[in-house]
Amino acid sequence: MAQDDFRIRPAAPTDAALILSLIRELAEYEKLAHEVTATEADIRTALFAARPSAECLIAEAGGKPVGFALYFHNFSTFLGRAGLYLEDLYVKPEQRGKGYGRRLLAHLARLTLERGCGRFEWAVLDWNEPAIRFYQGLGAKMMESWKINRLTGEPLRKLAAEA
Amino acid sequence: MAQDDFRIRPAAPTDAALILSLIRELAEYEKLAHEVTATEADIRTALFAARPSAECLIAEAGGKPVGFALYFHNFSTFLGRAGLYLEDLYVKPEQRGKGYGRRLLAHLARLTLERGCGRFEWAVLDWNEPAIRFYQGLGAKMMESWKINRLTGEPLRKLAAEA
Repeated sequence: MAQDDFRIRPAAPTDAALILSLIRELAEYEKLAHEVTATEADIRTALFAARPSAECLIAEAGGKPVGFALYFHNFSTFLGRAGLYLEDLYVKPEQRGKGYGRRLLAHLARLTLERGCGRFEWAVLDWNEPAIRFYQGLGAKMMESWKINRLTGEPLRKLAAEA
Repeated sequence: MAQDDFRIRPAAPTDAALILSLIRELAEYEKLAHEVTATEADIRTALFAARPSAECLIAEAGGKPVGFALYFHNFSTFLGRAGLYLEDLYVKPEQRGKGYGRRLLAHLARLTLERGCGRFEWAVLDWNEPAIRFYQGLGAKMMESWKINRLTGEPLRKLAAEA
């Protein structure tokens, strides 16, 4: 298949079921499938409401979906500027090694600059060695000292009740 | 000073200089002061433009500012819902130990639930033991396996040029 068959397009509302199925495939790869509770309606609302929570790109080869990238804007107080944060990047296993992931990342790097953002960030699981090597090769800096804290469920409700 | 003197209010455009000075104090504590390039105009635009990039709360005691919290919405594909992400939390050193940080976090936990968000997250530096103990005490889960990758400057421009 010629490289020319590959294209990246913005997701449309009719892609909600496709996006959810790709999110589930990614979660399975990450060994986190049990954490996926999103529904097709959730995805449609989040991406296509009047004020979307996130944006999504679909990667296609030979007219068929081969992956996706879902992203939103974060904000750096140190830069005083928004950044682009890539929440999910996924290429189907049988479509890997063709440079599609790199093309999605390059597309997003271009968007980052076009939108005047100061940086492009994403998280990686520390056991995902192939991904880490790939990102290092692009010149990404791994922020080793920062750890994400997450508050959810009962502890979140308990703290909220103090306010 | 009575606890009643403490209050949390949304930041106003006239707070831009104050917010920047608090961001700088926080950066000094984090040993990252050299990374702050934001200007007062950047902060004003980011927080008070027609479509703000982030939101900010000011904490006051006895009518004087004692700290701030700056946050925005992120998005979880697994939950299919937005989350609340706290970018900066800061209480002036001489005002610590009075529960002000906890009251800011409780305020944000309440906002997280009121806005229908699935989780409340923030990052901490791995050497900041007092902060880590405090967050653990609230029931926050430390996401040990996730590492943030950051692409900026020349490597970002180089990747963007491939698109």
